Amino acid sequence: MNTKDKIVVALGGNALGNSPEEQLMLVKQTAKPIVDLIEAGHDVILAHGNGPQVGMINLAMATSAESSANTPEMPFPECGAMSQGYIGFHLQNAIREELLNRSMHVPVATVITQVIVDKEDEAFNHPTKPIGAFYSKEVANELVSKKGYTMVEDSGRGFRRVVASPKPIDVAEKETVRTLVDNGHIVITVGGGGIPVYRDGNQLVGIPAVIDKDFASAKIAEILDADYLIILTAVEKVAINFGKPEVKWLSQMSIEEAEHYISEGHFAPGSMLPKVQAAIQFAKSKKGRKALITSLEKAREGIEGLTGTIIVSK
Amino acid sequence: MNTKDKIVVALGGNALGNSPEEQLMLVKQTAKPIVDLIEAGHDVILAHGNGPQVGMINLAMATSAESSANTPEMPFPECGAMSQGYIGFHLQNAIREELLNRSMHVPVATVITQVIVDKEDEAFNHPTKPIGAFYSKEVANELVSKKGYTMVEDSGRGFRRVVASPKPIDVAEKETVRTLVDNGHIVITVGGGGIPVYRDGNQLVGIPAVIDKDFASAKIAEILDADYLIILTAVEKVAINFGKPEVKWLSQMSIEEAEHYISEGHFAPGSMLPKVQAAIQFAKSKKGRKALITSLEKAREGIEGLTGTIIVSK
Repeated sequence: MNTKDKIVVALGGNALGNSPEEQLMLVKQTAKPIVDLIEAGHDVILAHGNGPQVGMINLAMATSAESSANTPEMPFPECGAMSQGYIGFHLQNAIREELLNRSMHVPVATVITQVIVDKEDEAFNHPTKPIGAFYSKEVANELVSKKGYTMVEDSGRGFRRVVASPKPIDVAEKETVRTLVDNGHIVITVGGGGIPVYRDGNQLVGIPAVIDKDFASAKIAEILDADYLIILTAVEKVAINFGKPEVKWLSQMSIEEAEHYISEGHFAPGSMLPKVQAAIQFAKSKKGRKALITSLEKAREGIEGLTGTIIVSK
Repeated sequence: MNTKDKIVVALGGNALGNSPEEQLMLVKQTAKPIVDLIEAGHDVILAHGNGPQVGMINLAMATSAESSANTPEMPFPECGAMSQGYIGFHLQNAIREELLNRSMHVPVATVITQVIVDKEDEAFNHPTKPIGAFYSKEVANELVSKKGYTMVEDSGRGFRRVVASPKPIDVAEKETVRTLVDNGHIVITVGGGGIPVYRDGNQLVGIPAVIDKDFASAKIAEILDADYLIILTAVEKVAINFGKPEVKWLSQMSIEEAEHYISEGHFAPGSMLPKVQAAIQFAKSKKGRKALITSLEKAREGIEGLTGTIIVSK
């Protein structure tokens, strides 16, 4: 291990709670292990999910637009931009406070970040990510015809809008993030996987989509030439045969092993699978790059090689 | 004039429209004069208001929280953070596009920005800034007793919540803004006057308030040691005896003249008065600093000394 590594940490949106009060409490817990990494001398870039938060904002805007309050309809990318401000505000303050509690004076900043996708990404042909409220079949049909939404029945609870989950191809604000990291700032970026946009000539145009935050984190980690991508999850290590008697917790996977385990179906789609895929993508992108999957609490021990699951190209 | 000045531009929130569609159109118009300044070789820092936008977000969140959608109550500072993301997303893209249309490759970034106020600011004793929806007297009384809001009757249209408008004393993310400006980035900051926070030990705590965006702009301009503060308004120049036959449009005011005109009541509170006051504050802060009040369209001509009203310490 170098004395000073550049580390992108990908934090789950579920770890941020469902209300501003919850979020304010939870970010304090989040801040401690993050500041442990900073205190150990590393450059830290923090990415985060926004599932519950952008869902809440989207639902509130839609509910109000349909009510007598007569607020405007708010497109999904704009809701994502709002969620970056909302989450970044709390997260940067918690990290700032934890730093100051340790007498460390390191600037922390949230950069509103757009992630560029390909408008022709085949994901747009079969949207899968449910967002917003549950509707009756009647209302769902209305939304399909009026707004062109794709609506699907969700586990008997009603109909929900689904959007695509395209792959990130670039980060619009990469120069800004790089400049800040190079100057010793802790940067919060690609919140919620980034505001999804596509290029149209010189223009960036918002498009309703959910970019997987682990893939977006892998992308910004590649761009910044990071040493580590840490993907945080609920468990300390990745397992094969998870939930079975022959469960095996893994300390290390080569890319080949990880791909083999994927082909054998060991990792749950929408849960551990995208994390392992994002880890592979980053580890594959350049020799020496290491991806670590572990829990928030174990992040620092993981970087020290004491726990977690490391994916590395040999 | 130096060949390269550092210029803080304060843009009004009313110039950004009342819906995402309006905003997307209006920022394109805003971008052109801003990029004119950049093309002329200046470093530009862009501050903006958020009155209509944070009002809309606040109203939507409150409406939804009271409905069956059951989204959480959203405090006013968090709504401000959302508005910075929402406005910054559109504004930075419009500037980016206008730059690329002129083959200029300059990074543009929005920094979520908190402005620190004094919790003991006497403004908190008499809140004056109306925010959010109009309520009946009955509901207003309920909000007073349940949430401790201050509610006032607003021109016969019902009761509204009012919050304080304290003076900005510092910008929490000043190091970030400075680093980016020093490295040639166009920075969007102190959106809506900044997210209002106060210091509580090592912590920054959000507090419901509206910081005047012109005062916040003057503060960040001082901190960054800017050469110019441009306060944009609907008119090309400041006038005394405005609306009277003896109206006189001013090309220049000394600080003493400006203070004299204020004492004579020439400038309307909530309109031209805070702009002139913010201009005085900046011009007073250091010899050679110039404040310019003019319209968006005339900003570049104003910097060239051709129009607008310059306030300068002699």
